Amino acid sequence: MSAPHDVNETHDPALASWVPSADGHPDFPIQNLPLGIYRTGGEPPRVGVAIGDEILDVAAALDGGHLTGHAGRAAELCRDEMLNPLMAAGPAAASELRAGVSALLRRGGDAHRRSGDALAELLLPQREAEMLVPALIGDYTDFYASVHHATNVGSMFRPDNPLLPNYKWVPIGYHGRASSIVASGSAIRRPSGQTRDDANAPPGMGPTRRLDYELEVGAYIGRGSALGETIAVSEAERHVFGLSIVNDWSARDVQTWEYQPLGPFLAKNFATTVSPWVVTMEALAPFRVPAFARPAGDPEPLPYLDAPAVRERGGVDLTLEVLLQSARMRAEDIAPMRVSIGSFTAMYWTVAQLVAHHASNGCNLRPGDLLASGTVSGPTPGSRGCLLERTWRGTEPLALPTGETRTFLEDGDEVIMRGWCERAGFARIGFGECRGTIV
Amino acid sequence: MSAPHDVNETHDPALASWVPSADGHPDFPIQNLPLGIYRTGGEPPRVGVAIGDEILDVAAALDGGHLTGHAGRAAELCRDEMLNPLMAAGPAAASELRAGVSALLRRGGDAHRRSGDALAELLLPQREAEMLVPALIGDYTDFYASVHHATNVGSMFRPDNPLLPNYKWVPIGYHGRASSIVASGSAIRRPSGQTRDDANAPPGMGPTRRLDYELEVGAYIGRGSALGETIAVSEAERHVFGLSIVNDWSARDVQTWEYQPLGPFLAKNFATTVSPWVVTMEALAPFRVPAFARPAGDPEPLPYLDAPAVRERGGVDLTLEVLLQSARMRAEDIAPMRVSIGSFTAMYWTVAQLVAHHASNGCNLRPGDLLASGTVSGPTPGSRGCLLERTWRGTEPLALPTGETRTFLEDGDEVIMRGWCERAGFARIGFGECRGTIV
Repeated sequence: MSAPHDVNETHDPALASWVPSADGHPDFPIQNLPLGIYRTGGEPPRVGVAIGDEILDVAAALDGGHLTGHAGRAAELCRDEMLNPLMAAGPAAASELRAGVSALLRRGGDAHRRSGDALAELLLPQREAEMLVPALIGDYTDFYASVHHATNVGSMFRPDNPLLPNYKWVPIGYHGRASSIVASGSAIRRPSGQTRDDANAPPGMGPTRRLDYELEVGAYIGRGSALGETIAVSEAERHVFGLSIVNDWSARDVQTWEYQPLGPFLAKNFATTVSPWVVTMEALAPFRVPAFARPAGDPEPLPYLDAPAVRERGGVDLTLEVLLQSARMRAEDIAPMRVSIGSFTAMYWTVAQLVAHHASNGCNLRPGDLLASGTVSGPTPGSRGCLLERTWRGTEPLALPTGETRTFLEDGDEVIMRGWCERAGFARIGFGECRGTIV
Repeated sequence: MSAPHDVNETHDPALASWVPSADGHPDFPIQNLPLGIYRTGGEPPRVGVAIGDEILDVAAALDGGHLTGHAGRAAELCRDEMLNPLMAAGPAAASELRAGVSALLRRGGDAHRRSGDALAELLLPQREAEMLVPALIGDYTDFYASVHHATNVGSMFRPDNPLLPNYKWVPIGYHGRASSIVASGSAIRRPSGQTRDDANAPPGMGPTRRLDYELEVGAYIGRGSALGETIAVSEAERHVFGLSIVNDWSARDVQTWEYQPLGPFLAKNFATTVSPWVVTMEALAPFRVPAFARPAGDPEPLPYLDAPAVRERGGVDLTLEVLLQSARMRAEDIAPMRVSIGSFTAMYWTVAQLVAHHASNGCNLRPGDLLASGTVSGPTPGSRGCLLERTWRGTEPLALPTGETRTFLEDGDEVIMRGWCERAGFARIGFGECRGTIV
């Protein structure tokens, strides 16, 4: 593994915070500092930074005089109900804000020595806040970047030809629906749709019987690009603000019937859940790893998708898990059960490649646009990121601790996705949770 | 043909306007009154109504005291840089504004008798205005509603199986790109993309060699729907503000290589051009006709897509043409050549069916969302709405008056799309033009 780049004192594992819950927090120690949008009561939404079990209000810190200079200028962009202005300002602004917030939250730092306990007034417990979709997402694009997922799904639909000839050349993607992106915790209504079980009978219309989740990683665009402009793959990450978790809910029976020839539509656009916290690219710097090692015989990426920096550290060593809790488990106080655990390093295409490909025809990207990776599935059954794969189209049901079984999601099921990065010599950071319950 | 519904005095062919160019205008007589967003110089965008060769500024008419009561309240929604607030208010507001503007522009009407020539100050020549995309388009959906287009394209890609089994049951659609929707007149840069000519050779990356247009009709959503809510097909048109022309530019060689299994992506999202004027559903009332007559043996639409009103007047008798002018034709002052002419009545699915289908899974529609019909192609070669079909994948080149030929678009080519409605006993109304030149 190559040495991490862009690692600075904000990543120092010895850093401690005056926020009591921060040190050793599995997701939000001072080395993470992800951004999100929160609301309390009927107040307008505000920009916050997660620290331990708390939220730091960025505008309040600015108003209190705790963010000055470059950090103060970046914090001015956080006087908004969305992260878009900060995102649009590019990586330098995000980095300056991070440095300022890190200094502010540091135990024994200038702010701590100067203002002491008064700083605690900038915090709000996360349990008292409602977390919202963090950006105005103009366009949502969904990719298909896991070769394991593509091969598994392809082998169900086309046993003789699982992986199409374009897969190893083209980062396959399609446009999703922006309007139906919802915050973590939002109830997911089981959608109705056309399905056809019997090729000799007419299709029917009714509630989906094959409701599924898809575990994905979402990249929020920071600085945008103009229509007609391309983005060099070596520069692509400078257009990415940060990552979060995405659950691309899917109605598999609807998808099977509708998807040809123009791709998924109503099978997907009834809801997509995003996790509340956006982990910045800078926070992820210690966890960068080489891009997926293509098996011998696979083609090299075309030049517009290839760069030394992408090969050497295009990957993110991010572990992802999916948990499920049925209504009965909840009633019986049985904890959510892990359904899968896998790694984002198993993706065939890197985030930089997805961005560069998206802009390669001059399509403009806007700050706040969401590019999701597609289902993150690894090579083993336990690392498959959707039930379609995990239960192999329903042929291998999951056993729940209650004795219940699952092929697809039932009403009352809650799906919980989590992600985190760990590496010796660095503090563990996490993405928090992306949750949704079927109703 | 059944009697037109919802026809009122604003449709009276005897109505004349005090605007000199309005009466007998091929597109914009007083019976049309489409809405758009225009700008002059560096001023902020404003809402306008097309009348003859002029634009009526709605906010100026309101400020001048010429729109009062219900019409005035609707006009207040036009103090914006987009049509979205008016769209969101639903069909009653649009109707009240129409009635007020019609009365204001009427020769010999109260306003005309009272204010006479002073009214002329509310007008601006269209040639002095820059027309913009008329709405903030949150999501853009592209359908595939012409069975002729689907059959033609299908027979090129799948000769043995041109029309897939779902076509006559499902109004096939997919999500397009909202960020790259541009106003009529915007230059269209030839995109680059991956293509593969030879199945035994690697793909290449370069400018598309099969650049095409697609003639479509776009429906702008008026009043939206909430996430989880469906829209009855009989009510669907009450969620449609109006129609315009859409050119869904396409790179066919990129599309062929990338589109499986998730549909078109970079082949389409580099640009989509919309015409500036939105013709309201009320203006179209005299031109409503029965839905497409399904051939014997075709299935009936499923109940959620079927209603007497849709069968009886779901169609719009709208004629559409495509013209092309090469750079050489322009240099030699040769007028654009008609490439095709066809009718929107040939569409297999109606606008109401597209809307009802889109919301049938609970996907929320927002005011200003654009639902495009898909390429409007009729049963004859002369009515095929894209070059892929018109030149049958390039095998039947078009001859231009200069002696040039065309299979796909060349740099310098301008594509001009027009649409209009004509019916005995009513004034002809038109959509104006949707233009774009390849650079």
